[in-house]
Amino acid sequence: MNVHIITIGDELLIGQVIDTNSAWMAQELEKEGFQVIRKTTVGDVEKNIQEALDTAISQAQIILLTGGIGPTKDDITQKTLCNYFNCHTYFSEEVYQNIHTLFSASGKEINPLTRRQAIVPDKCTIIQNKVGTAPCTWFEENRKILISMPGVPHEMKWLMTHEIIPRLKKQFRQNLFIHHKTTWISGFTESMLATQLAPFEKQLPPHIKLAYLPQPGLIRLRLSVYTNEETTAIQTITEQNEKLHQILNGHILAKEDKPLEEQIGETLLARKLTIGTAESCTGGRIAAMLTSIPGSSRYFTGSIISYNNNIKHHLLGVSPSDLSHYGAVSRQVVEQMARGAIHALGCTCAVSTSGIAGPSGGTPQKPVGTTWIAVAHHNNIISRCHHFTSTRETNQAHAANTALLMLLELIRKA
Amino acid sequence: MNVHIITIGDELLIGQVIDTNSAWMAQELEKEGFQVIRKTTVGDVEKNIQEALDTAISQAQIILLTGGIGPTKDDITQKTLCNYFNCHTYFSEEVYQNIHTLFSASGKEINPLTRRQAIVPDKCTIIQNKVGTAPCTWFEENRKILISMPGVPHEMKWLMTHEIIPRLKKQFRQNLFIHHKTTWISGFTESMLATQLAPFEKQLPPHIKLAYLPQPGLIRLRLSVYTNEETTAIQTITEQNEKLHQILNGHILAKEDKPLEEQIGETLLARKLTIGTAESCTGGRIAAMLTSIPGSSRYFTGSIISYNNNIKHHLLGVSPSDLSHYGAVSRQVVEQMARGAIHALGCTCAVSTSGIAGPSGGTPQKPVGTTWIAVAHHNNIISRCHHFTSTRETNQAHAANTALLMLLELIRKA
Repeated sequence: MNVHIITIGDELLIGQVIDTNSAWMAQELEKEGFQVIRKTTVGDVEKNIQEALDTAISQAQIILLTGGIGPTKDDITQKTLCNYFNCHTYFSEEVYQNIHTLFSASGKEINPLTRRQAIVPDKCTIIQNKVGTAPCTWFEENRKILISMPGVPHEMKWLMTHEIIPRLKKQFRQNLFIHHKTTWISGFTESMLATQLAPFEKQLPPHIKLAYLPQPGLIRLRLSVYTNEETTAIQTITEQNEKLHQILNGHILAKEDKPLEEQIGETLLARKLTIGTAESCTGGRIAAMLTSIPGSSRYFTGSIISYNNNIKHHLLGVSPSDLSHYGAVSRQVVEQMARGAIHALGCTCAVSTSGIAGPSGGTPQKPVGTTWIAVAHHNNIISRCHHFTSTRETNQAHAANTALLMLLELIRKA
Repeated sequence: MNVHIITIGDELLIGQVIDTNSAWMAQELEKEGFQVIRKTTVGDVEKNIQEALDTAISQAQIILLTGGIGPTKDDITQKTLCNYFNCHTYFSEEVYQNIHTLFSASGKEINPLTRRQAIVPDKCTIIQNKVGTAPCTWFEENRKILISMPGVPHEMKWLMTHEIIPRLKKQFRQNLFIHHKTTWISGFTESMLATQLAPFEKQLPPHIKLAYLPQPGLIRLRLSVYTNEETTAIQTITEQNEKLHQILNGHILAKEDKPLEEQIGETLLARKLTIGTAESCTGGRIAAMLTSIPGSSRYFTGSIISYNNNIKHHLLGVSPSDLSHYGAVSRQVVEQMARGAIHALGCTCAVSTSGIAGPSGGTPQKPVGTTWIAVAHHNNIISRCHHFTSTRETNQAHAANTALLMLLELIRKA
């Protein structure tokens, strides 16, 4: 079954908000064999929404809409759908009851605008939104299904998980099987890797696709299969994936598409190690990434973010004479920061960063992007200087990513 | 001039990568009066790309494509464009020279696959990509312009800034004027705010639109104007914006659409204050947000991330008996953390967090999402308990956001 996702909202079109909903929706739909073939974003303009609906209905069986169904005047999705499907509206007691329950729980009063959320189109199924005031509407016409949901991420996720995907599964017995296997590779440029993999790519069966997703310091290789023969498909993609791993033996960072911080967490737990960070230029990004993983308190002890050199000295024990002689962005300082973190934070491993994120602060000797990173396990310490060449935001992100890559390399050998 | 953005890549369609390019592109285009009317995402499938091109060309004057022009087999955008515009290809010495320069600088060798990036379509203008191997192609047919760029964000941004926007500006003397004014409001639900603003909305001139963008703890109100009468447009939107500010006086968090961390930075600088953080459940997120601002080293001293209670005690001076008596997630502990941060980090203000981010760790008395936050300026300290009700990721993000809101409130009065 093919799906077209339409996200609606001027804020998406003018770039004031980044659409993260559609990526999540696609992942959840794929797990059940529904394939997203296109995504469209339009503003809150009736004509443009209608045109997007026309295109979507001509291409897909299922059309999922998010956004534009709030209580305020700028939200016109529901009105547009009413006109599109020639509906009338009525006051739904059931929706009103749901709003009432939600508002009572938080002690808020229902005003006329909120009450209006209970006025819904006929000619569609109303699906209760237990976590928000705007209900979900489900239209069926000429064997096409069109579902309109709120754009608020946690409301959309609740509706997709509890209502929409279960109902779609019930309605369509899927015979499409979608499966991806992703491997993380280091030590190659994209073209070097593609050259090495040319014979492998040539022998791939036609229903298996190989994709290259380069990012700083690594390439994600994805094998994908779309088929209706589940048993043989799993066997074939597994065989091909193993072949790939044999060819790239020694360059594999991960055999699953897992965030670095999750791989690090698993390795730390398996080896009974703990981690702390001493961050300057990354300003807490590494700690934030490590603590994004549920259960990270089992191996993450804490961090010292030392923007100020006094903190580098007082809390991390960096020598003031080294600070003034070599500068804060130096091997000497970053190594002392890592050692100091192990001592001050009571962990067995540490990662430290000191660099010039920019846009200012660069010198001819140490231009913006110059970044020292150290990783340490007890007395074993490795440090490297990297030269990032982008904006502050990207330099900070690259530094954090590189630090985690260095850390994973170290603890895998620990 | 209307723009349609097409982003190409299976990784976008299956949700493996979130599209951040198109939001950035829209913002940059709008500044010059180019209006993005639609965005489409398709996979690496020739037929689907062609259909997207047909739709885009029928609706917009300018079509911007990103993605699918790397050196590997899965990238088919250029081949598709060649077929679409009936082109032949040739080897471009100029593109090859650019690749050569890039590879020499980083000491890499050009392999045949990379060399192939210099084979480009005729019937188009080739624009050199000085920061990557894949050139940009610029097609013109029947008064429509179609431009294909790499999907790698920093390459796309370089090309847009240095080549594409300047060329578009030269070619089209724009007479469309687009302007937005965004105000941040706190203390309202969306429907309460809309009810209060109903008379204001009613009197708005037809070419000015008001939009509501709710997010945890605040609502962003955006006034937008699209017009060809620049002088009167600026005057009208400024007048309406001032009217809005008068109505909402006392509820205004910010009169510009600036990240909280930027507003905090400006306030700290203006009042000659410095800031440090003591974070538990937010794990470094607040520090990362504060240090994302260029020049933050002028007011941000550092942080102590104390996941482990030993660190709360040893580095922040939290009383062990209070930790065991009240628990780490308590008013007593979070206030001592804030005081401890001011002392240990040598700053005049501090923010601290301690909560249960989840998914595990909750108890009947302190369910997942329970979060204590304190903000302090010298001896003045304010603490509050919040109850977030989402996933770990969202609870952490809400806690960081709420902490910054509390901090802004405090330092504005300092």
